[in-house]
Amino acid sequence: MNVERERLLLALDFGGTKLTAGVVSTSELSAAGERGWRAYRMAPSPPGSNVQSDLEIMMGLARDLLASPPSVPPNSGGEAQPPLAAVGVSFGGPVDAARGLVLLSHHVPGWEKMPLREWLEERLGVPAAVDNDANAGALGEHRFGAGQGYDSLMYITVSTGVGGGWILNGRPWRGADGMAGEIGHMVVDPAGPVCLCGKRGCVERLASGPYIAQRACEWLEAQPERGRILRALTENNLEAITAELVAQAASQGDDLAWEALEVAAWALGVGIGNAANLVNPECFVLGGGVTKAGERFWEVVRRTARQTALPEVHFDVVPAALGDDAPLWGAIALAEDQI
Amino acid sequence: MNVERERLLLALDFGGTKLTAGVVSTSELSAAGERGWRAYRMAPSPPGSNVQSDLEIMMGLARDLLASPPSVPPNSGGEAQPPLAAVGVSFGGPVDAARGLVLLSHHVPGWEKMPLREWLEERLGVPAAVDNDANAGALGEHRFGAGQGYDSLMYITVSTGVGGGWILNGRPWRGADGMAGEIGHMVVDPAGPVCLCGKRGCVERLASGPYIAQRACEWLEAQPERGRILRALTENNLEAITAELVAQAASQGDDLAWEALEVAAWALGVGIGNAANLVNPECFVLGGGVTKAGERFWEVVRRTARQTALPEVHFDVVPAALGDDAPLWGAIALAEDQI
Repeated sequence: MNVERERLLLALDFGGTKLTAGVVSTSELSAAGERGWRAYRMAPSPPGSNVQSDLEIMMGLARDLLASPPSVPPNSGGEAQPPLAAVGVSFGGPVDAARGLVLLSHHVPGWEKMPLREWLEERLGVPAAVDNDANAGALGEHRFGAGQGYDSLMYITVSTGVGGGWILNGRPWRGADGMAGEIGHMVVDPAGPVCLCGKRGCVERLASGPYIAQRACEWLEAQPERGRILRALTENNLEAITAELVAQAASQGDDLAWEALEVAAWALGVGIGNAANLVNPECFVLGGGVTKAGERFWEVVRRTARQTALPEVHFDVVPAALGDDAPLWGAIALAEDQI
Repeated sequence: MNVERERLLLALDFGGTKLTAGVVSTSELSAAGERGWRAYRMAPSPPGSNVQSDLEIMMGLARDLLASPPSVPPNSGGEAQPPLAAVGVSFGGPVDAARGLVLLSHHVPGWEKMPLREWLEERLGVPAAVDNDANAGALGEHRFGAGQGYDSLMYITVSTGVGGGWILNGRPWRGADGMAGEIGHMVVDPAGPVCLCGKRGCVERLASGPYIAQRACEWLEAQPERGRILRALTENNLEAITAELVAQAASQGDDLAWEALEVAAWALGVGIGNAANLVNPECFVLGGGVTKAGERFWEVVRRTARQTALPEVHFDVVPAALGDDAPLWGAIALAEDQI
């Protein structure tokens, strides 16, 4: 490796409801061991936001980060900030990564066909790269997280939705339309409930947080004698049910809550097993709030995935290491690949 | 492109019940237009075969091919055979392509961990490459068949079993265990009938030829008033039913036969749609006997695949162009990549 002058990499994450930015220095990246942000900022993308307000807030965060001294000085105190080398972006919506184009946002108006790479390159004067949050998450976990050392992996995030991204041959595989990794809309139960997408029994319809909560809620309404613990946790306000409360009730021995969670684990396991048969990656890295539902949840995911895959197909199923920051670290990887 | 001296490429296909070999010349490959075999031989692998007898028969075919003059002389008659440049192999069973190792045969004993690449290189004195028949079929259709011009595709063969192989970024994607492409054992109906693999509702359990025949047979037994045309075609011998007869009866207006076929088309369509969401290739190339079941079968496959995939995921679904020779042409591509 060349001994190069220290420079900064900027990562931007445009989420549906929040904007996050982080900075690392190239010398920190090339060093071994735990990695942390040199500086980090977050701001909400409030209801009523549009592309202009989002970009304004984000550029404010970026200016802040690039002007501020490092939270932990890498060498000695008092020196000037190193120059910016590149910027990477994770975007919560469909992106044409090859052209650096945001296709649209499902949350914030005005993003249609926004040439974000070009826009950033003009303003910041450095190379930029843009990808969607699932691909960025895969890249982040592969380069800096639980996926290090694997040549192929699928990253799956299970929270409000279910998304995923691929690393194949050590590099992102985005697919012909940049849509690869959409495991959330794999049909695993054609007799299952109808998903937002119109199909029945998609992985997302069975495993995402809001649908876990909805299922538990429907079962509580239909089975008044069951779910005592979950009812108590919600103070009998069924509208307050979240997947987190369902997981909490399940861990405290609530059978109804566990069964609502088990459906999610089963659907995710079938999706992983099917994906293993189809693509045969070395590893599945699972992140997102729902995957924090406890060891019993993981057991069902792993067992179902194993039973669904052929015996000759081997794979690990491991928890994500970077948490909600996986896409932001992926944006750092995108930036790193520009220099 | 260099103007090189003409040389020969040898392709060998070890199927479960037959052995096939073909030869093309490098000058024919580099020419545009229809491609054909310079010479071609086939022999059965009879019941009771083992690895030694298979190899002996195959080497006999190869010697024949390399000694015989071309069926259509490429330049003028009477000249000597060009020298052999490389050999490629398609094997009907699991293969470690990176190490050129056959892992086992489900049909013929003695193939366990057979170092076929090394064995051939020692005997023929040229570089060799080995892959399984599904990957070879994908490579064949991509290089010489219906997949030409696509950067990414999945090849699916639907006959006695259902197998598949990937081309991603213009190159074979084999997976960590060489098992990528196993769409046959994707679960599409967890409430469906039990597959040989032990799971319920695999694509293969619903779409392969023998299972189409079995389903039609069961329905004929249970519904004595239906299936008049199919019964007539089998001369009322239900054990004589094949998927081909089912397709023939369906095309003549037999409702029961069509419904038995429709289940197969539906399962294949869901599998393709799920694979499209997951990997987002440009194209699916379908081969194997079952895909000759007629336009109505294709309509259901295409419609179901389209309905299963997200609207943003685009792909073609096209018939294979090389028929049963796709793996043998893939073996030529493997050989071509060695020179």
